Amino acid sequence: MKNTIKVLAEPGKQELFITREFDAERELVFRAFTEPELLSIWFLPKEQKMRIGYMDCKAGGAYRFIMPGQDGNEVGISGVMHEVLAPERIIRTFEYEGLPERGHVALQKILFAALPGEKTMVTIHYICESVGYRDGLVNSGMEAHSVVVYNNLDELLLKGL
Amino acid sequence: MKNTIKVLAEPGKQELFITREFDAERELVFRAFTEPELLSIWFLPKEQKMRIGYMDCKAGGAYRFIMPGQDGNEVGISGVMHEVLAPERIIRTFEYEGLPERGHVALQKILFAALPGEKTMVTIHYICESVGYRDGLVNSGMEAHSVVVYNNLDELLLKGL
Repeated sequence: MKNTIKVLAEPGKQELFITREFDAERELVFRAFTEPELLSIWFLPKEQKMRIGYMDCKAGGAYRFIMPGQDGNEVGISGVMHEVLAPERIIRTFEYEGLPERGHVALQKILFAALPGEKTMVTIHYICESVGYRDGLVNSGMEAHSVVVYNNLDELLLKGL
Repeated sequence: MKNTIKVLAEPGKQELFITREFDAERELVFRAFTEPELLSIWFLPKEQKMRIGYMDCKAGGAYRFIMPGQDGNEVGISGVMHEVLAPERIIRTFEYEGLPERGHVALQKILFAALPGEKTMVTIHYICESVGYRDGLVNSGMEAHSVVVYNNLDELLLKGL
């Protein structure tokens, strides 16, 4: 049975939590989130191809992921790393470059909790500049996307990376 | 008559707005926030001395300010720059290193709006990981501190920097 995603987005709040358990030890899951060549395998649905523009996964580093957009053009997600504390957490900024204007940014905390039995709970905590921005994230299809790509990640982890 | 600070912190929200008008044109005010040698003149009350650990005021850059702490030791504020769009806005992370544990971070948007008559409205928008963190900022004496140091900044701007 597959592990299920939980999305918590309380009405009127500026935050969003996406939680998912993985049947793999924390060090492996952390690597899958932080090593570009691993991330690019699972981060998009299989029919799409992601390019890593750059990804320097340490405090003060930056990242940019380039993906197929809805209009046939490419679109980026980018940000800077405030903290990368292996294998426990990543704190970084997040900007979806496909919005009508730039400058709308979220803070993203990605927490990796070790569970008994060599399992790992991953929580992505989005902290948003407004409730409207948060609602936009929720309505962007993020949950359905996460279901698909976390299944990709399950497959990758099952192979031991 | 001095311009007054407005602090907006709605109960139960994760955000905080600190707004202040300055009698100087936007380019000057922006410089006072982004050039280390200017920032270190006004950012603390005059009886305290701030050191700029580092401050690379561009996207992907980082900063660390070192100040006298309450216990006689020094304490830092640090973060990374997501965007620096002169003279309009700065988007960066913010961590007060004096908290009992690391990893509690806010997103900070600093907006510089040009007003008629060569005046500038500065808004600092803190976007916090929790209501408790936000309330901690409000209760840290931030408003009283800002009153004092923005008066320092008035003096600096009056001299033309």
